[in-house]
Amino acid sequence: MSWAYWNPVKIRFGSGLFDEVAKLVGTRRWALVTYDQPIFHELSARLAKAAGAPVVTISNIETNPDCADLVESCRQFGAASQVPEVIVALGGGSMIDAAKVLAASGGDFETVRRHLVDKVPLDADTIVPIIAVPTTAGTGSEVTSWATVWDSANGSKYSLAHPRLYPETAVLDPVLTVGAPRGLTLATGLDALSHALESIWNVNGNPVSANYAVEAAREIIDTLPRLLERLDDVELRARQMRASLLAGLAFSNTKTALAHNISYDITLKSGTIHGIACSFSLPIVMRWATGVQPQCDAALRRVFGADLEQGAERLDAFLQGLGVRTDPAAYGVSPAEWDRLVDKAMQGERGRNFIGKLAAKAA
Amino acid sequence: MSWAYWNPVKIRFGSGLFDEVAKLVGTRRWALVTYDQPIFHELSARLAKAAGAPVVTISNIETNPDCADLVESCRQFGAASQVPEVIVALGGGSMIDAAKVLAASGGDFETVRRHLVDKVPLDADTIVPIIAVPTTAGTGSEVTSWATVWDSANGSKYSLAHPRLYPETAVLDPVLTVGAPRGLTLATGLDALSHALESIWNVNGNPVSANYAVEAAREIIDTLPRLLERLDDVELRARQMRASLLAGLAFSNTKTALAHNISYDITLKSGTIHGIACSFSLPIVMRWATGVQPQCDAALRRVFGADLEQGAERLDAFLQGLGVRTDPAAYGVSPAEWDRLVDKAMQGERGRNFIGKLAAKAA
Repeated sequence: MSWAYWNPVKIRFGSGLFDEVAKLVGTRRWALVTYDQPIFHELSARLAKAAGAPVVTISNIETNPDCADLVESCRQFGAASQVPEVIVALGGGSMIDAAKVLAASGGDFETVRRHLVDKVPLDADTIVPIIAVPTTAGTGSEVTSWATVWDSANGSKYSLAHPRLYPETAVLDPVLTVGAPRGLTLATGLDALSHALESIWNVNGNPVSANYAVEAAREIIDTLPRLLERLDDVELRARQMRASLLAGLAFSNTKTALAHNISYDITLKSGTIHGIACSFSLPIVMRWATGVQPQCDAALRRVFGADLEQGAERLDAFLQGLGVRTDPAAYGVSPAEWDRLVDKAMQGERGRNFIGKLAAKAA
Repeated sequence: MSWAYWNPVKIRFGSGLFDEVAKLVGTRRWALVTYDQPIFHELSARLAKAAGAPVVTISNIETNPDCADLVESCRQFGAASQVPEVIVALGGGSMIDAAKVLAASGGDFETVRRHLVDKVPLDADTIVPIIAVPTTAGTGSEVTSWATVWDSANGSKYSLAHPRLYPETAVLDPVLTVGAPRGLTLATGLDALSHALESIWNVNGNPVSANYAVEAAREIIDTLPRLLERLDDVELRARQMRASLLAGLAFSNTKTALAHNISYDITLKSGTIHGIACSFSLPIVMRWATGVQPQCDAALRRVFGADLEQGAERLDAFLQGLGVRTDPAAYGVSPAEWDRLVDKAMQGERGRNFIGKLAAKAA
């Protein structure tokens, strides 16, 4: 069996590194993508002081970048006073994903839409490099080459993917995550756990991704409950951000699997935040994954110990202990709906990555 | 404390992947760097059949590429019928290192010499991309951005290093290593172990490199003795090659440390093969590294268990069990010479990476 691994992102990690972003921009004309919120205004001003003013600031996107809003974002990007040579994405996964859409758009969302819907190839040479500065610990988008684009008007989502969309540099400064409230810390932390586990029970899994994923999952299970008790502990924030990064490095080469595909319908249906929607089903999915493939079992044992049935129970208890209901009914899904939803998810782009198809079908 | 990690090499791993190298060359004009030996003539012919003839084949280098020979290699490279757009390096670490020298030379070793000796910057845009196809499991050079250049006439060595010298792609086909005799398998296997451990007791160590190094070291300690009993076992060859790759990914971002710096004088003095020269001192160096830095101790414990003094003994027994003498006297070094040698190594480019300077000084 052959496998491949590639992740060209330059990683910079450390408390206080935000102040080095300006150096990474250098003398290039830069665009800023960030939230329209006071704390981000402050960070943006700090950055602009050191790097000079951006040629354009795009801040019309909130959570889950949607086609409807991205049309306007791309228009603003195209109308910049000068053509940007680099984009700084400052925020959570939604900001980094939005930056990827802008980077590929050439200033017109239609370019991206034609690519996503009509499969028209992107012009690689026009894709603008990105410096990703995550302010949450969970997305992993700072080290992946794709972005989730929502089309809520049509109840669907797309994945924009291109090798040139790997950010040029990811700057991970744990201090930036200290202000995140409990709910966001929980959701993003569990998103990272889901990235790690979903890269393990994945047809694209390989020794490099597995090694990242095992360390990430162990660290998150150990760190997240303590962090939720001490939200301002920078050392725990750093551990969680490092684990999220490792999970990102794992799933950057495998993509996610069934739990993520399940999540998309849950989010579209109930608006459940992504990190919860993609993690409440992990114990169920883990049971389906167990016993299917020796490498997967071996990796799961490195996380959960020798007995994987007990491991799935521990995972369930871990989630419930954090206040996350693990029963689909808690998300308004009846047993019959759940079967249909899983069946549909299994056919999805991510669901097809899942190694435990037969077990899930039989369930 | 901040840290960085970057490794842009595209990794392809799998038995039989050698036949995909032609596809990676594509329509580019390519140069071949390989050994002048029958088995390599055969592999070269197989590759040329699929990829078309190379514009030049350089095969005047043997082990430890030396300035004296590289002058001629670069001349041949510069005299190619057409300017090469990519270099395929087929062989052990010496071939991949030689390819890096050629890639940076522009067809004249003087360019590299001026860079190494007079610190004249290389012209990044003229560096030719490399496809590295290792035929031994140990070098790690397929995923690093540097090359060791020997100057035996002057009893010294240089390290050629540039970000653009990261190979474009590393193709790891374990089948290519099956023919390696016991001695070479042992030496390259221990070179990889040394890369892993030296990246752990290293001032440049970080969570990503440590995670690679721990897995690599564990796998090598488990696999190598069994492989030496069953040299034609492709599965064990694959495990060893994978571990060597992980060790390469670890030390690609830390470089090596004291044991490697010690090795250079041992090799120059006695001609001891690199993999033995850089590993016989590992138990000694491990004792000096222990108790100095919590992250280093934690990583070593993941390899050797809770008791690191016992761990160093186990490492010593492991090496001696493979027939490697761990006493400097066995390499013709008297106790007084050894002290001088360690002292000099500590001042060396790699020795300065070692975290255990004080312990080593006190010894």
